[in-house]
Amino acid sequence: MASYSIPAGYKFHPSDEDVVRFYLRPKATGQPLPYPDIVFEFDLYGEKEPSEIWDMFGGPSLDETEDLFFFTKLKPLSRSRVNRSVGIGGTWSNESSKTIFARGTRIPIAMKRNFRYENPGSPQDGAWIMREYSLPMKTQPDVGSSSSSSYVVCRLSKNDRPKPKVVGEVPLKKEEMKSLINLHKRKIDQER
Amino acid sequence: MASYSIPAGYKFHPSDEDVVRFYLRPKATGQPLPYPDIVFEFDLYGEKEPSEIWDMFGGPSLDETEDLFFFTKLKPLSRSRVNRSVGIGGTWSNESSKTIFARGTRIPIAMKRNFRYENPGSPQDGAWIMREYSLPMKTQPDVGSSSSSSYVVCRLSKNDRPKPKVVGEVPLKKEEMKSLINLHKRKIDQER
Repeated sequence: MASYSIPAGYKFHPSDEDVVRFYLRPKATGQPLPYPDIVFEFDLYGEKEPSEIWDMFGGPSLDETEDLFFFTKLKPLSRSRVNRSVGIGGTWSNESSKTIFARGTRIPIAMKRNFRYENPGSPQDGAWIMREYSLPMKTQPDVGSSSSSSYVVCRLSKNDRPKPKVVGEVPLKKEEMKSLINLHKRKIDQER
Repeated sequence: MASYSIPAGYKFHPSDEDVVRFYLRPKATGQPLPYPDIVFEFDLYGEKEPSEIWDMFGGPSLDETEDLFFFTKLKPLSRSRVNRSVGIGGTWSNESSKTIFARGTRIPIAMKRNFRYENPGSPQDGAWIMREYSLPMKTQPDVGSSSSSSYVVCRLSKNDRPKPKVVGEVPLKKEEMKSLINLHKRKIDQER
């Protein structure tokens, strides 16, 4: 391991591609990482609450523009589902996802999934953002695999703009959505 | 001088206070700087155009979030005026200024002046932003002083949002402004 001291004014502000090229890919392919303690090894899908993890790894002393980064192993429930519960009663709820391409190309190098901490009733509900970087599917872990290829990078940050709560609105279930679509189709047919 | 290698993903994104504490103040008070080539020594009020300076110091290879930083000496014209011409026919035109305070206090530690490159007729007109950090007046240079205390830090960046050009608008001269105000006053008097 190389020793290093970072000149004042430098912040760990990696681009998405930086995260994949210099941290996720080496880790997931079992290569040594030149610098320890930049991306920490810790389970973001474990028993600790985001606020505890934030405090454990020096979050409170970070510049407000800095996030915390972790190597975490995915916990597959099945071929297509992953357990993303966290702490006591909390879940990382997927808000959006995008493919990361190598700069200036259309070559996909990773997926970036954006999550929000959800724990209805907890004062921490909605207070944390987590972005998960994973390698493309072909290099994804087999179910139950414990190889290094199951690593993802998780980027933890405070949510400065929590979503306003919508009172009384309940998301539709799949069945309800289907019947709504059918209703709409029938209406269109009738209008013809 | 300490040697250093910066881990991937770190960018030079100093806060205003970082610039003052770790670069400007040591330089202006003649203290050694631990790391060379982070803030370069170069005259931002000299003969080179901003675009030339940008190219000379590796601007084109920077991440789009990064700026270039320079130690420059002010060129006082009088006790209250400073020569901020640059290149051939260009001027750093002051857009706004603010006082920088030590974090969490009302102790002023520096002035930050925001400039825009103006060179009417040049395709580069408005294409550059420069922010100048200077120590408070009591530590400012005497006229004609060449001591290290006359140093400022200049932060050069591309202007991604050039001001839209107002066609046909010419700024009012002082006399014109005065007569407009008088006209307006007379109108108000008449309406009473």
